[in-house]
Amino acid sequence: MRDEATAFVPGHITGFFSAHPHDDPTKAGSRGAGLTLTDGVEVTVEPTTASEPTVVLDGDEIEVEPVRTVLETLDAPARVEAESDLPLGAGFGISGAMALGTALAANRVFERTLSTNELVTIAHGAEVQAGTGLGDVVAQAHGGIPVRLEPGGPQDNKLDSIPARARVEYLSFGELSTADVLSGDTDRLTEAGRNALSRVVEEPTLLSFMYASRLFAREAGLLTDRVAETIAEVAAADGQASMAMLGETVFALGTGLSDAGYEPSVCATHPAGAVLK
Amino acid sequence: MRDEATAFVPGHITGFFSAHPHDDPTKAGSRGAGLTLTDGVEVTVEPTTASEPTVVLDGDEIEVEPVRTVLETLDAPARVEAESDLPLGAGFGISGAMALGTALAANRVFERTLSTNELVTIAHGAEVQAGTGLGDVVAQAHGGIPVRLEPGGPQDNKLDSIPARARVEYLSFGELSTADVLSGDTDRLTEAGRNALSRVVEEPTLLSFMYASRLFAREAGLLTDRVAETIAEVAAADGQASMAMLGETVFALGTGLSDAGYEPSVCATHPAGAVLK
Repeated sequence: MRDEATAFVPGHITGFFSAHPHDDPTKAGSRGAGLTLTDGVEVTVEPTTASEPTVVLDGDEIEVEPVRTVLETLDAPARVEAESDLPLGAGFGISGAMALGTALAANRVFERTLSTNELVTIAHGAEVQAGTGLGDVVAQAHGGIPVRLEPGGPQDNKLDSIPARARVEYLSFGELSTADVLSGDTDRLTEAGRNALSRVVEEPTLLSFMYASRLFAREAGLLTDRVAETIAEVAAADGQASMAMLGETVFALGTGLSDAGYEPSVCATHPAGAVLK
Repeated sequence: MRDEATAFVPGHITGFFSAHPHDDPTKAGSRGAGLTLTDGVEVTVEPTTASEPTVVLDGDEIEVEPVRTVLETLDAPARVEAESDLPLGAGFGISGAMALGTALAANRVFERTLSTNELVTIAHGAEVQAGTGLGDVVAQAHGGIPVRLEPGGPQDNKLDSIPARARVEYLSFGELSTADVLSGDTDRLTEAGRNALSRVVEEPTLLSFMYASRLFAREAGLLTDRVAETIAEVAAADGQASMAMLGETVFALGTGLSDAGYEPSVCATHPAGAVLK
């Protein structure tokens, strides 16, 4: 057994999605597309002799159900310490990143000799089961600008990506509960997500992704007033912005938010998926 | 149309493989596993008005059939300029890297709006058709330490990976012709490749990959004397080395070759697949 291991998992902003439930959480998931980000989560796992695992995010002990599930699945009694510049609950896939980072690092520390696909499957299943996300984990394992053509873990899904990279700005006004939205009526959302995906498959470019994302946010009825205003202001300054699914968060390409007079956080698309450090 | 675009494609050392021919070159390919490398190829594509494309590697004009095929498929009359620290023909997947880098960069320059999978399919098919490689392109698009479970381009293949990273040393004594080996009797090679893959699927770790690779090189009858001696010297110094498929090249984890008294080139596994710069 090693002393500890650390993984970096990129943040993931979903631009649009459709939900695809399944009795088996490793087959359930979402179709959609998003941006993985150079801003992400660094997850360190070290063995503990305590009877219960400890999970810490930015110094505060928190309960993250998918992380606990991953540790149980890997039979890994551990202390998990995560650090991130991204806000929690605002549409950046923090819970997915913590689950995936825990899987990668715990596999190394406890020498579980699982493959990447197996670890991603475990983290994805744990996230779906907890209701905290449907597509972040597989996107974060992939990196770049993933397009999720078929739902589920790596054994079942089908991924493509947009061959591009971009500077990304973001601004978060607050949280939206993924679990609340996903437990509500998702028919309208699924229809809007299907339309958006068709558009991006037909033309896999950043511009069409942003267009499809804005249309999705409107059609799915998820825009809040503040988010809609900010997106309009970015458009007025000739920029491209949309809403992160699911958070009260606006993201923009290039200098979109800065040009509209905001002081956003700045990062970029992340070329790689999650990695051990 | 843009002025130019540049892509970086990691080098790829195949540790073992089995050949899987198919009438459709996008479905043909190989199973196997390898290391993608931080040493790779930077490929710049710029439009040309000349009637024939130009392909330059490290300042010398050369003929690379898969690159020419990619340019024709994308209807992209271009000058392709590649730079690499890796030796050509020595088992680092240079031709695959040039084909894939050309596809990514030409798609951007000529605004062909293809997806990553489509570009990888084109580059993979061009490489297989030319007989210069069977699995490098899909591995180089993936990054990390890819395990190719099913052959072919992204529409058909199945990839997993070993969740690890490593410092990599290498030393090249010279070229081996991929086309010669692949056009010969590949039954013994295929059997050895199948055994090696089973081993790595069962235990997807770096150590088992190195062990399976050494066994493959011996069983497939591809070891040259110089390579066999060097691998033995690394083993005598408690290191892990094997032979790059296909080149007269020895690669080692960590400081394997240095510890055995050699002065190797040094790089590391590359966390990401091919990327536009």
